[in-house]
Amino acid sequence: MTQDFASPPRPVVNEFDVAKSLDIVAANPYHGTQDDFDGETSTYEGDYSRSLKHTNYLITETNGEAIGWDSKRQFPPYDGQFRLDVYTHISSGANMVEYWHWHSLHYGQETYWKGVLGHDLQPGRPYEEVSRTAHELQRIGPEIVDLRIKNQVAILYSSDSYHGIEFMKFSDNADYFTVLHQMWKALYHANVGVDFVFPESTNFSDYKVIVVPPLYIASDALLNRLSDYVKNGGHLVVAFKSGFCNEYSTVRWQLMPGPLKDAAGFHYQEFSNLKQPLPLKDDPFHVGTDNRVSDWAEMIIPDTAKPVAYYDHPFFGKYAAITQNQFGAGSLTYEGTVLTDKLQKAVLLGVLDRAGLTGPDQKLPPTVHVKHAQNRQGKTLHFFLNYSSTSQFFPYTYPSGVNLLAQNASVNQGERLLLQPWDLAIVEEK
Amino acid sequence: MTQDFASPPRPVVNEFDVAKSLDIVAANPYHGTQDDFDGETSTYEGDYSRSLKHTNYLITETNGEAIGWDSKRQFPPYDGQFRLDVYTHISSGANMVEYWHWHSLHYGQETYWKGVLGHDLQPGRPYEEVSRTAHELQRIGPEIVDLRIKNQVAILYSSDSYHGIEFMKFSDNADYFTVLHQMWKALYHANVGVDFVFPESTNFSDYKVIVVPPLYIASDALLNRLSDYVKNGGHLVVAFKSGFCNEYSTVRWQLMPGPLKDAAGFHYQEFSNLKQPLPLKDDPFHVGTDNRVSDWAEMIIPDTAKPVAYYDHPFFGKYAAITQNQFGAGSLTYEGTVLTDKLQKAVLLGVLDRAGLTGPDQKLPPTVHVKHAQNRQGKTLHFFLNYSSTSQFFPYTYPSGVNLLAQNASVNQGERLLLQPWDLAIVEEK
Amino acid sequence: MTQDFASPPRPVVNEFDVAKSLDIVAANPYHGTQDDFDGETSTYEGDYSRSLKHTNYLITETNGEAIGWDSKRQFPPYDGQFRLDVYTHISSGANMVEYWHWHSLHYGQETYWKGVLGHDLQPGRPYEEVSRTAHELQRIGPEIVDLRIKNQVAILYSSDSYHGIEFMKFSDNADYFTVLHQMWKALYHANVGVDFVFPESTNFSDYKVIVVPPLYIASDALLNRLSDYVKNGGHLVVAFKSGFCNEYSTVRWQLMPGPLKDAAGFHYQEFSNLKQPLPLKDDPFHVGTDNRVSDWAEMIIPDTAKPVAYYDHPFFGKYAAITQNQFGAGSLTYEGTVLTDKLQKAVLLGVLDRAGLTGPDQKLPPTVHVKHAQNRQGKTLHFFLNYSSTSQFFPYTYPSGVNLLAQNASVNQGERLLLQPWDLAIVEEK
Repeated sequence: MTQDFASPPRPVVNEFDVAKSLDIVAANPYHGTQDDFDGETSTYEGDYSRSLKHTNYLITETNGEAIGWDSKRQFPPYDGQFRLDVYTHISSGANMVEYWHWHSLHYGQETYWKGVLGHDLQPGRPYEEVSRTAHELQRIGPEIVDLRIKNQVAILYSSDSYHGIEFMKFSDNADYFTVLHQMWKALYHANVGVDFVFPESTNFSDYKVIVVPPLYIASDALLNRLSDYVKNGGHLVVAFKSGFCNEYSTVRWQLMPGPLKDAAGFHYQEFSNLKQPLPLKDDPFHVGTDNRVSDWAEMIIPDTAKPVAYYDHPFFGKYAAITQNQFGAGSLTYEGTVLTDKLQKAVLLGVLDRAGLTGPDQKLPPTVHVKHAQNRQGKTLHFFLNYSSTSQFFPYTYPSGVNLLAQNASVNQGERLLLQPWDLAIVEEK
Repeated sequence: MTQDFASPPRPVVNEFDVAKSLDIVAANPYHGTQDDFDGETSTYEGDYSRSLKHTNYLITETNGEAIGWDSKRQFPPYDGQFRLDVYTHISSGANMVEYWHWHSLHYGQETYWKGVLGHDLQPGRPYEEVSRTAHELQRIGPEIVDLRIKNQVAILYSSDSYHGIEFMKFSDNADYFTVLHQMWKALYHANVGVDFVFPESTNFSDYKVIVVPPLYIASDALLNRLSDYVKNGGHLVVAFKSGFCNEYSTVRWQLMPGPLKDAAGFHYQEFSNLKQPLPLKDDPFHVGTDNRVSDWAEMIIPDTAKPVAYYDHPFFGKYAAITQNQFGAGSLTYEGTVLTDKLQKAVLLGVLDRAGLTGPDQKLPPTVHVKHAQNRQGKTLHFFLNYSSTSQFFPYTYPSGVNLLAQNASVNQGERLLLQPWDLAIVEEK
Repeated sequence: MTQDFASPPRPVVNEFDVAKSLDIVAANPYHGTQDDFDGETSTYEGDYSRSLKHTNYLITETNGEAIGWDSKRQFPPYDGQFRLDVYTHISSGANMVEYWHWHSLHYGQETYWKGVLGHDLQPGRPYEEVSRTAHELQRIGPEIVDLRIKNQVAILYSSDSYHGIEFMKFSDNADYFTVLHQMWKALYHANVGVDFVFPESTNFSDYKVIVVPPLYIASDALLNRLSDYVKNGGHLVVAFKSGFCNEYSTVRWQLMPGPLKDAAGFHYQEFSNLKQPLPLKDDPFHVGTDNRVSDWAEMIIPDTAKPVAYYDHPFFGKYAAITQNQFGAGSLTYEGTVLTDKLQKAVLLGVLDRAGLTGPDQKLPPTVHVKHAQNRQGKTLHFFLNYSSTSQFFPYTYPSGVNLLAQNASVNQGERLLLQPWDLAIVEEK
């Protein structure tokens, strides 16, 4: 029994609940191609699908030659992108990749939702690449199926918070998902493997770091569990508006952030929208022109927390924008405002450093992504994927192994790996 | 018996008629705060409310900590703005200022239409400032209640003209209210006190200058009364499209501007929209880059009127854009096109000069506004209000008195007054 | 029996079928005035109306003083434009010009859809010009009525293709009509007389060049007739997406462009939208910054065709963008992408050169248009029309004649003609 989730997470569906009834989760990710292909969408929906039951999953639909219910978004993948996407899915834990459609349709709404075969029903460039990849899988499939992935970082996803914020939107430029995506993307592009956790999850302690997009709707119980997570040594990163309403979307009549106040180490009574972005005083994260916060500014008064950044403004300048609080054995880092991507990355990598989770994966070329997994034989695999039209060259820093895609050619620790455009290596440790 | 008018004037309501049944007029002005607070909205709605019955009025609702039916426009006032707004209302003739809400609500549509108390129900910054202001009023209230205000300039407001123009809009950028607001703002920022008059008003002769936004809909009787006002010595400023239709929104089958033709001293048969703004020939008002007219151009052929400005254009250049006509003992100044703010100000101040209505009030720093009134004891009050985040320093030019807000410290004619950011002085003449 | 077509062609009406039941075609062209008057709209709708029955036609409505269902588009014509528009119509084959309205209305939806007389019902500038033109026609009318116009170039108009493309739009910036208009305008501004032909037309062989906007919907029979037209010596210019669907809007399951494949001399299996415009490699038409294609890119693989232009791009660079194929006695030029106006003009003028259809008419000043016709007396007329606010001066290169609008003053071959702003000459050969 399966169900194909279309572009999860979609807050109109409670995929977490649905997944309880499924034998295996399936997802239909449709992603950017050509210059917009960077593995993001496939990995994001893969991380989410894998986290629903902590199992492998299926890709039941994904881009054939092009997609669209008109002919405005026809972007056939560049050479190599069909194949690279298959391995992107597998390296996230997928056990199957299936296309929609097999052949392009000749009339109706999905005339331009193209297949592996075009309208002429003759083998063409897309068919040739899919066929080559399929033959490759026939050979190395047993080594890369049923992969197990163990991450140290999780994102807490609350669809109730999405809906609560939508009811009382704080901006036309930002919302629950822009913050969640920004946090996930900062981790993805830093090559940090991420799971998702849910308000109902009982495994918070499996993770060294939990990242919390605006948790606008939450019960006291959930907030207390997050507070305990910190007390017991966890590192929590919490975005603005968290703790504001209870599970009935009713604002708490307490100093904010409500039950998180002790773990957060501050309180606030007021907040303001920002008509124009503001700089943080003295550019505390050294990000230059990206040193800007926007849209929303909580007017934070630290109690025990250390103010990490202040607003640079005659009126708002007396309030903290970002804080960090040691609480029990752990820490709570709070973002009281909307950050630029570079600020978000700086805040998150700072917390990862504190948790001892950074290393060589953060030093790869920007377009090269690495993912790690264990296969059925208990061997460790490293996937190095090059999402760019130029070749990439970088040192291999893990224990020596063989490249499954190059006739098991050996790859030695310290040796430099060369990846062609839109190509990859899969190194299996010996 | 009262009725709280929401943001008057609102043309869907005939406030003038409603006011006849009220003991006292009440208004609910919601205004910009933070960097957008300049006293404009409070004074504009105050001028209008005061003019409905020529009496004092009540403020039954205005901004608490923030407003909005979502959380996109949360702009808590800067320190001092709560208090300055109270005196803005009083100096326009208000006898009460009341907030909406007392405390912020915890659910529903107005969750973010914040009160004097926040969601935490504890005294905070807004409460402290409202409390301080209330104690001040307890002390000086008897001196500043029931103020009488006597202005020499009025604006003729015709809601029928608004509706007639909306039915046959002449621009997406300008309409009846953009012109009315532009005229009112030019006078407000020149510190010229303004009343409103109505088509039904019988007190035109109380004013030395009457300013007429596009009077598109008007009976012959009204136009004849305006013509008589000029003949008897009044100075009339009239915007384009005035006189075009009768009271049934039917275009007059006469040379335009219909019954105003003799007082105006010109006629026109044609008009054109302007795709691009045009300069006036030779920059007659010396406003440099603001020497532009736009949207609408009546092709005016002067009869007895003096052409004050011509369009600078190969085709339109033969027609006048602005004219002035001496008619009987008064004058009619006509604007046949949409002016920039600086041109509007230049035209209006020219007419005020002609009417002997300019003086030291026009020489104050731009962010300082002055208003004059008589109190119940017959004493003359001068309110000096500083709408800015910087201190202001300027000479006091009226007869010596005392500053009611500074323990009645004396203020001598010729002495320089210092106002702190978002602060004010109320000088009561001896 | 007539019917006034509003702004033809309008694809919701099959004017070609309707015209079969009419004695004479009539059209209501409303066009730009003031700086937007260039004869385009009047000529375009005239070319179309004349082509419906290959006869003269009537103008039953056109701009009076101004148009609009509000007062946002009031643009009374500059001096001379009323008259120049009348001769624009006549030179395209119109036998009558009638205005809507006679006098301006005083109320209702068309209050600002002005007439020849304004609201004041008194003669004004527009009336005077219409009156002058009417008296001129009274004098020279017999020489310029019932003109016969014989063009060598036609555009194939397919309303089915418009609808098919709209159902599956390929861009928000381009559609069937943007390409058709671009092709027509390139010819108009090159002073090339154009007829329209239709899928049902049987007179393709009357034309040396037929230009085909995206013929997305077409029967095999129509495509075979176009192929035969080329084989028999015609020069065909075909835009992208032509041949894609059959007459039931069903995509052909053949290599594209389907039945046109042999005449076109290439095939394609794939196509892509373009997020950003691309240059053509090596600027083959020498148009500098206009060397850009956009929106849609067919990935053309030439068989016998000569690639005229390639995309300049790492991936698309291996495919042709524009091709030309000699097929039988004629040629087929194909545009696989959306061109800039200058590229379109270069492609079309190249084909016209090949067909021997260029000459002195392409060397006139840009704002001067020339049209040629034969009158009832069998005499050849040349209309030279100046659509600009400046005088124009150029050589007259046709056999000597007389200027009907200048008391039959003689005009000799080689002499230079001077046209005043918005003025014209009608030279009748001796």
